[in-house]
Amino acid sequence: MDSKILRTLSYGLYAVGVEGESYPSACIVNTVFQVTSSPITIAVSINHDNYSNERIKATGKFSVSVLSEDTSGTVIGALGFSSGRTSDKLANVNYKVLRENVPVLRENICCWFLCKVINSVETMTHTIFIAEVKAGSDNYSGKPMTYDYYRRIIKGRAPKNAPTYREGDDKGDNSPQLKYVCPICRFAYKDSEHTIPFDQLPDDWRCPICGVSKKEFRIEG
Amino acid sequence: MDSKILRTLSYGLYAVGVEGESYPSACIVNTVFQVTSSPITIAVSINHDNYSNERIKATGKFSVSVLSEDTSGTVIGALGFSSGRTSDKLANVNYKVLRENVPVLRENICCWFLCKVINSVETMTHTIFIAEVKAGSDNYSGKPMTYDYYRRIIKGRAPKNAPTYREGDDKGDNSPQLKYVCPICRFAYKDSEHTIPFDQLPDDWRCPICGVSKKEFRIEG
Repeated sequence: MDSKILRTLSYGLYAVGVEGESYPSACIVNTVFQVTSSPITIAVSINHDNYSNERIKATGKFSVSVLSEDTSGTVIGALGFSSGRTSDKLANVNYKVLRENVPVLRENICCWFLCKVINSVETMTHTIFIAEVKAGSDNYSGKPMTYDYYRRIIKGRAPKNAPTYREGDDKGDNSPQLKYVCPICRFAYKDSEHTIPFDQLPDDWRCPICGVSKKEFRIEG
Repeated sequence: MDSKILRTLSYGLYAVGVEGESYPSACIVNTVFQVTSSPITIAVSINHDNYSNERIKATGKFSVSVLSEDTSGTVIGALGFSSGRTSDKLANVNYKVLRENVPVLRENICCWFLCKVINSVETMTHTIFIAEVKAGSDNYSGKPMTYDYYRRIIKGRAPKNAPTYREGDDKGDNSPQLKYVCPICRFAYKDSEHTIPFDQLPDDWRCPICGVSKKEFRIEG
């Protein structure tokens, strides 16, 4: 078996909002699915070492903002590339805080909903939270961003106003240069798209999408 | 909140194979995601009343065949529209049985993998199985079918050699007629596409994709 076959699983892309200790916080995940319809419950998988995991366990609640194809790479980068433990990740993102102290994005999302944890199951690296949907948008709009769309269309094209943008980066995944690839969600880190080369990222750096640790990333040509 | 917002979650489409009592069996699911990378584990959600759920609990193993966009509606219909408890669902499907007595599809799939259950969590209607991937294809090919693709392109177009086909059915989802819609996965049943009208389906009929009971289906115009 070649573990690459797991690449064929399909996912969406979501911002999970939590009540932080200092600031409202959020992270990016690709694993949300509906489990039951009455009551409406969903499941979401979040890495143990992720600040959002800790805050969901502490507060028993979180939000899901369903990203649309209009969501910019800058927003995904802001929520995915740093930890809410040490920074205000939402500082440059348009969001509102629900009465329950949980943030949801305001722009370029299809909809949002608020979840209350009712059960969870631990795996080696991730917690799968099962949660009841308690409130949400009155309607939805736009086209949901799939993880495949994100990888093919959004990622690898840093927006021109982003500090990581370099002339000529706009090549998508067809560039022959080396990339460091997450074994779970296939997020790919190319040195040319970032100010810090992969080798120099701190040891506790994690996949911005699914939280896999740096040491598990694999080099692909 | 309008519960329709849950339609914006993204899914793939998979055939889950199990060791049946009389025949190898399989069902269609849209909820599979990878959880950890080392060992490789995945999660899958299967309705309590589904025969596959019972067989996974009895045997501790199952397979996942990742459907490709080439998978025909006939195959999905064969695996989704009846119960393996009472019929040989795979009778007209090209499959092979692994050494572990679990079937995988042979045609029009991207890849397959074999899973051993390591944990599970119950919800009101579904079991979420967490399973380690023990073996699988040497590679993958084709384009994975997303549930969105299935709904837009495959469903509602019964193939011409299928008993349910009627001249003029080829209208996709744009037909204004009534449909009976699954509140979880949005599977839609239109009377014109089937020999049995929705009202006359047995009370224990369930959504062929996610197993929701008939009484939970909602009429949409």
